[in-house]
Amino acid sequence: MTTTQEMLDTVPTGVLLGSEDVAAAIDACLRCTQSCTTCADADLVEDDIDEMRECIALCLNCADVCALTARLLSRPAHSDEYVIHRVLDACVRVCTACAEECHRHAHHHRHCALSETVCRECIRACQALLDTKTFADIQRLAAS
Amino acid sequence: MTTTQEMLDTVPTGVLLGSEDVAAAIDACLRCTQSCTTCADADLVEDDIDEMRECIALCLNCADVCALTARLLSRPAHSDEYVIHRVLDACVRVCTACAEECHRHAHHHRHCALSETVCRECIRACQALLDTKTFADIQRLAAS
Amino acid sequence: MTTTQEMLDTVPTGVLLGSEDVAAAIDACLRCTQSCTTCADADLVEDDIDEMRECIALCLNCADVCALTARLLSRPAHSDEYVIHRVLDACVRVCTACAEECHRHAHHHRHCALSETVCRECIRACQALLDTKTFADIQRLAAS
Amino acid sequence: MTTTQEMLDTVPTGVLLGSEDVAAAIDACLRCTQSCTTCADADLVEDDIDEMRECIALCLNCADVCALTARLLSRPAHSDEYVIHRVLDACVRVCTACAEECHRHAHHHRHCALSETVCRECIRACQALLDTKTFADIQRLAAS
Repeated sequence: MTTTQEMLDTVPTGVLLGSEDVAAAIDACLRCTQSCTTCADADLVEDDIDEMRECIALCLNCADVCALTARLLSRPAHSDEYVIHRVLDACVRVCTACAEECHRHAHHHRHCALSETVCRECIRACQALLDTKTFADIQRLAAS
Repeated sequence: MTTTQEMLDTVPTGVLLGSEDVAAAIDACLRCTQSCTTCADADLVEDDIDEMRECIALCLNCADVCALTARLLSRPAHSDEYVIHRVLDACVRVCTACAEECHRHAHHHRHCALSETVCRECIRACQALLDTKTFADIQRLAAS
Repeated sequence: MTTTQEMLDTVPTGVLLGSEDVAAAIDACLRCTQSCTTCADADLVEDDIDEMRECIALCLNCADVCALTARLLSRPAHSDEYVIHRVLDACVRVCTACAEECHRHAHHHRHCALSETVCRECIRACQALLDTKTFADIQRLAAS
Repeated sequence: MTTTQEMLDTVPTGVLLGSEDVAAAIDACLRCTQSCTTCADADLVEDDIDEMRECIALCLNCADVCALTARLLSRPAHSDEYVIHRVLDACVRVCTACAEECHRHAHHHRHCALSETVCRECIRACQALLDTKTFADIQRLAAS
């Protein structure tokens, strides 16, 4: 999805957190929404559904949080960095929980193995944004 | 939307933050998603659109954050309270910004006046959840 | 959710399908999004999850389609009636399937009983819009 | 986003409309959600906002319909082909309107030029699904 950065670079205000990193996070979030939605759908037809309850639930929450994160990051001209920070923080948290649960099933369900990988890429891309100086300042503010 | 609490009360795990308060927050978020979506739509056909740019942008972000908040709160059997806290915090922030901007136009655009009221109800309902003891603990944790 | 019609009535262009009926459909869709999301969440912790697979899947699809329907209907100044027709048609279909599946579990899961009722109200409200003269014309066009 | 087809291929039920074409449509819809969201955001800070009203409104509807389309197509184990058909049909319609409006501004707003291209790719990918034999049968059914 190389168009994402190109799109962001057309926004007259610029992109406070950097268009390359923001584009990477948007694309990772969209992929994660996709893979988690399909993983939950596949879980629902597996024989061992009794073991997959938590995986389904985490995938649903993960898909929804990632979809919102991608959407807010796609509006750089009207970003409230405090809101973005909170949502990225929630996103990293839910992707981490989802990756860990998928990991438990990765050896016997290929959708879980793939989903774990996509979640981990999403964590990295969102954490990279949280680690920027802009957000370090907000974090400090929140803790004060 | 009185069905919301009734629905929550059927969830076998119970509702950690209390079904009455959670139902109130869900309903307030859904109403806010609705009114902000219509407010942005109406803004786009007003003569003074040049003055309404910020209002449109805030209404769009507010509608999306409220929709996610309602969705996550509607899954009490699989709530990660850390995630819920971050999303509620983002929700209060974006509703506050939206209410303030709508207030500036409330005297000449009735949709802004109505939208301001709905945003303020949403802030109250979400803040009530953030003020519960469960979340006070999380807040303390985050600041440590 | 009485604010919905009030909001729609502030839109300068008016509401082609009638603000009362459109508001009723929006509110029914939002309630259905809510109840189906909670029903799927509750299903995931029931003992008989093996029997609830279809119910979970239908509730997920129903919640998503209803959320979009509410959103598009909330933008009366920029409605493409062809798009609205297709989405309402999809909405009635998925709500019907979901109501029928919930009905099968209604006697032993109260969330399914409630969800069935909410789905049926949503079907009625959406069908009322599809039955308006505006849409009868579109239907005729599509079949020609 | 090459993971999409890989994910679809893990679903035990298979993918009725073919995993390659469905993956292409999902990826195109996600890109279109992204570009339309950013296009509307950029429009809101352009000097000629008065001329961009329709573009903003169409981008908002397009982003929402594409997001739902991607989501429903990502659940191949629980697809109701009638629902998918209606949503794809709505998606092609709103993407076409959005592409045409973006085209009008493509020479002076690069985000509109990019967005037009992405919309047209989305139309092609969704239309390819609508043109499959499975959907030709549904179409015939609907017209009878």
